[in-house]
Amino acid sequence: MTQKPYILISNDDGVAAKGINYLIETLHPVADLLVVAPDSARSGYGCAITTNVPLTIQPVRSERGLKVYSCTGTPADCVKLALFQLVGNRQPDLVVSGINHGDNSSINAHYSGTMGAAFEGVLHGIPSVAFSICDHNPDADFRPMHDYIIDLVFKSITMGMPRNTCLNINFPKADNFKGVRVCRMGSTQWVNEIARARRPLTKQPVFWLTGERVDLEPEADDTDAWALSHGYVAITPTTVDNTAYELIDVLKKLM
Amino acid sequence: MTQKPYILISNDDGVAAKGINYLIETLHPVADLLVVAPDSARSGYGCAITTNVPLTIQPVRSERGLKVYSCTGTPADCVKLALFQLVGNRQPDLVVSGINHGDNSSINAHYSGTMGAAFEGVLHGIPSVAFSICDHNPDADFRPMHDYIIDLVFKSITMGMPRNTCLNINFPKADNFKGVRVCRMGSTQWVNEIARARRPLTKQPVFWLTGERVDLEPEADDTDAWALSHGYVAITPTTVDNTAYELIDVLKKLM
Repeated sequence: MTQKPYILISNDDGVAAKGINYLIETLHPVADLLVVAPDSARSGYGCAITTNVPLTIQPVRSERGLKVYSCTGTPADCVKLALFQLVGNRQPDLVVSGINHGDNSSINAHYSGTMGAAFEGVLHGIPSVAFSICDHNPDADFRPMHDYIIDLVFKSITMGMPRNTCLNINFPKADNFKGVRVCRMGSTQWVNEIARARRPLTKQPVFWLTGERVDLEPEADDTDAWALSHGYVAITPTTVDNTAYELIDVLKKLM
Repeated sequence: MTQKPYILISNDDGVAAKGINYLIETLHPVADLLVVAPDSARSGYGCAITTNVPLTIQPVRSERGLKVYSCTGTPADCVKLALFQLVGNRQPDLVVSGINHGDNSSINAHYSGTMGAAFEGVLHGIPSVAFSICDHNPDADFRPMHDYIIDLVFKSITMGMPRNTCLNINFPKADNFKGVRVCRMGSTQWVNEIARARRPLTKQPVFWLTGERVDLEPEADDTDAWALSHGYVAITPTTVDNTAYELIDVLKKLM
């Protein structure tokens, strides 16, 4: 009998979130799991790492083929600690991040702690996948994703991924999906991003981040934002290499 | 007489760092400046934004053509607050982030709060530039950068930048630079990233992020890491679009 795959799981909604626990219940029957996730929500933390204070980890749950830890750090910190302190002698076959409560397509990926964990996996040479659903509800229904998750996880392990590249997979909020589309990251922009308020005691002004996302290319049918708004699962191959290659020659002439 | 350009400045080392203050003294004679920077160091914060607590801003310094604020948020938060609460009716001509105390080339850009601020500028349609020097010393000598900064700032304003694209500019630690090279982001990897310690009082284990960066392609002479190690100023055009375009057709066949 062949060994089950070994999967490292993290997220940015925290170890108690329904999304990561649905992912654990989905994958536990078919894989050995190591889960290291933030002790509370770290939404919007992107690829942030913690360098100015030390981190701690606490065991949360341990059973056959499943170990769960909570960590005081960011999603990227969790993956680093897992790979260098907790995996033991067995390197994970895959890093899976999520399931995020909320859309991580287009510009949201830029700020996403879910993606921060997936990037950390590929930066250490491990194929990585991020799962998100377009539903911020803490009690979101993840069941329609079940078979897709199993299928996409095993495909990702089998096919591997080029260095520095991972998959950003977003699901629409729906009972059924129209299918899967491979996409590029859409160009969107956040607007009306600041809400003013006052501290009740001192009346000092404070500023909350908020806003709405505007699609800058709603007609383009090759983006992740388009796929989601039309009922498809959006798979966006994503790289840590941010070089704007098309500008290199232009700049060489200007500089 | 034409109006001086209007430049928004931020960083990730905090408003008191020598690097941002050297940038202010360099640009104040030639530009109107709005400075909004974190109240203390936010190194490694990447593109992180703060959504779970409200932010505050405090005026630090105000004179003709220069206003400085400190902010409780991340570098990206600082730029958002500046653009939506502090710029007034005049849109900045450029966002400048830095000068960072430390190398932000290759994979360091991925974790860099300095880059987080620059990305935030271009996400709002403003040309943006990040400056860093390969010297972590809080008292680093920025004077050799002076004329390059003036030149690169005015070139950036004049030429503009395509949407979602900014410049990541790194300087070697040197008294003189061999010149400027336009580069791609090099492929490097951090290793030995965790240092174990114990809390003095409880002896509980804690984990510090640390490590060394390894160049995965030291022979390639078109990377930012190569330019810096050979004495050149490295200019890397950088985009917020992380799509791995070369994988789209491959994945379409596999899915």
